[in-house]
Amino acid sequence: MRVIKLTIEYDGTRYCGWQIQHRHKGSPSIQEILQKVLQTILREKVRLVASGRTDAGVHALAQVAHFKTRASFETKKLQYALNGLLPDDIIISNVADVPADFHSRFNASSKTYRYTILNRAYPSALYRQMVCHCAYSLDINRMRATARFLAGTHDFASFRASASKVKDGVRTIKKISVKKEADFIYIDIEADGFLYNMVRSIVGTLIEVGRGRLSPQRVKEIVELKNRRLAGPTAPARGLCLMKVKYD
Amino acid sequence: MRVIKLTIEYDGTRYCGWQIQHRHKGSPSIQEILQKVLQTILREKVRLVASGRTDAGVHALAQVAHFKTRASFETKKLQYALNGLLPDDIIISNVADVPADFHSRFNASSKTYRYTILNRAYPSALYRQMVCHCAYSLDINRMRATARFLAGTHDFASFRASASKVKDGVRTIKKISVKKEADFIYIDIEADGFLYNMVRSIVGTLIEVGRGRLSPQRVKEIVELKNRRLAGPTAPARGLCLMKVKYD
Repeated sequence: MRVIKLTIEYDGTRYCGWQIQHRHKGSPSIQEILQKVLQTILREKVRLVASGRTDAGVHALAQVAHFKTRASFETKKLQYALNGLLPDDIIISNVADVPADFHSRFNASSKTYRYTILNRAYPSALYRQMVCHCAYSLDINRMRATARFLAGTHDFASFRASASKVKDGVRTIKKISVKKEADFIYIDIEADGFLYNMVRSIVGTLIEVGRGRLSPQRVKEIVELKNRRLAGPTAPARGLCLMKVKYD
Repeated sequence: MRVIKLTIEYDGTRYCGWQIQHRHKGSPSIQEILQKVLQTILREKVRLVASGRTDAGVHALAQVAHFKTRASFETKKLQYALNGLLPDDIIISNVADVPADFHSRFNASSKTYRYTILNRAYPSALYRQMVCHCAYSLDINRMRATARFLAGTHDFASFRASASKVKDGVRTIKKISVKKEADFIYIDIEADGFLYNMVRSIVGTLIEVGRGRLSPQRVKEIVELKNRRLAGPTAPARGLCLMKVKYD
């Protein structure tokens, strides 16, 4: 049995997310499309396991997924075949044989997400599907001061989807940065794991701080209070991109 | 009579270009969409004149167009109304009253285009509509050496669409640069004017040089020979973006 690791870039705009979701019957999932194409090429059923799900509209520069197979093929050739058959909003950037005990989710030591805000009066035509437009003027220094309170190990219960059933909300943010280039604000977060909607809740909260509706100190308290209702709203999916999954 | 100058950002992917073109009956033109929305808002027929046409699939970060009107309105309010009614792949970044003798095409002192090449083995899912994918390894130093021969005033007859009927092919390239960032190669060209398909012919030729199929010295000769058949092919529209139009 071989274990194959795929690195995948995708534009999530027209998908219901990584995984099949019954409430989005109209749009396909990325996993579904990939499994079908793999089956066509390898002539066997394949089950892809990703480092984590991404929601409808969320993008990935380098999602990682693995599958097991008995088929014999060269990894480079499989990459070309996949890219030839996949729709052009899904691209395989790497195919590699990995040790039999590799698991894309359990072995991941960290994941990095980037959230992009376009901060100016009018939206963008060219980048509309990859940024969240924010017309309120945002104070980047307040956002940075808040980011410092979020770095490190905390129970992030205040920043997860209210429907989430995962009990343990403790995660470690290894790095968090807020950068500004022209009208774009980039929020990069590397953590050992993320609660459901955690990045988008953090970003929604940072926007509230940037607008002046919350203080950095208040966000420090909100972390400690572990109550989702106190944090800012969930920022839109289109601004979010999974940039990297690290394995030790 | 007022003269109004619009600055327009657009994603050209689903359009037949700036101007109505009868050979592309299926897809609308950007000019057409804008004129309709202006007419809805101002309740009068409006004729937009752009700094120049862009082809099907070509983008603009800052196209400039003007129109004459007797309507009274605040420019900021017109901008909001336009952005509210336009499809999200066309955005008005500025609306300004300009002197009565302003003409977006005749008064333009230079235009700057950027062409983006993605130079790696596999295409991009996220940037697919804004880059031209080139899998051959390109030698950026050869491309730069060639760009130096193209700068300045020349008859660019070797780099224009063969169907073009404009007699005078003399144009001045004020600036031309070839930059590399990660896998992206950016070719920026500022000129006092461009022949039809000139940027895409130059880029197609620079790609041939980068691949080693033409030498920089040979391109110098091709400029002098003024024969379209000697230059490289026309690079695809999707990599091209009108970045700036300058007025003195």
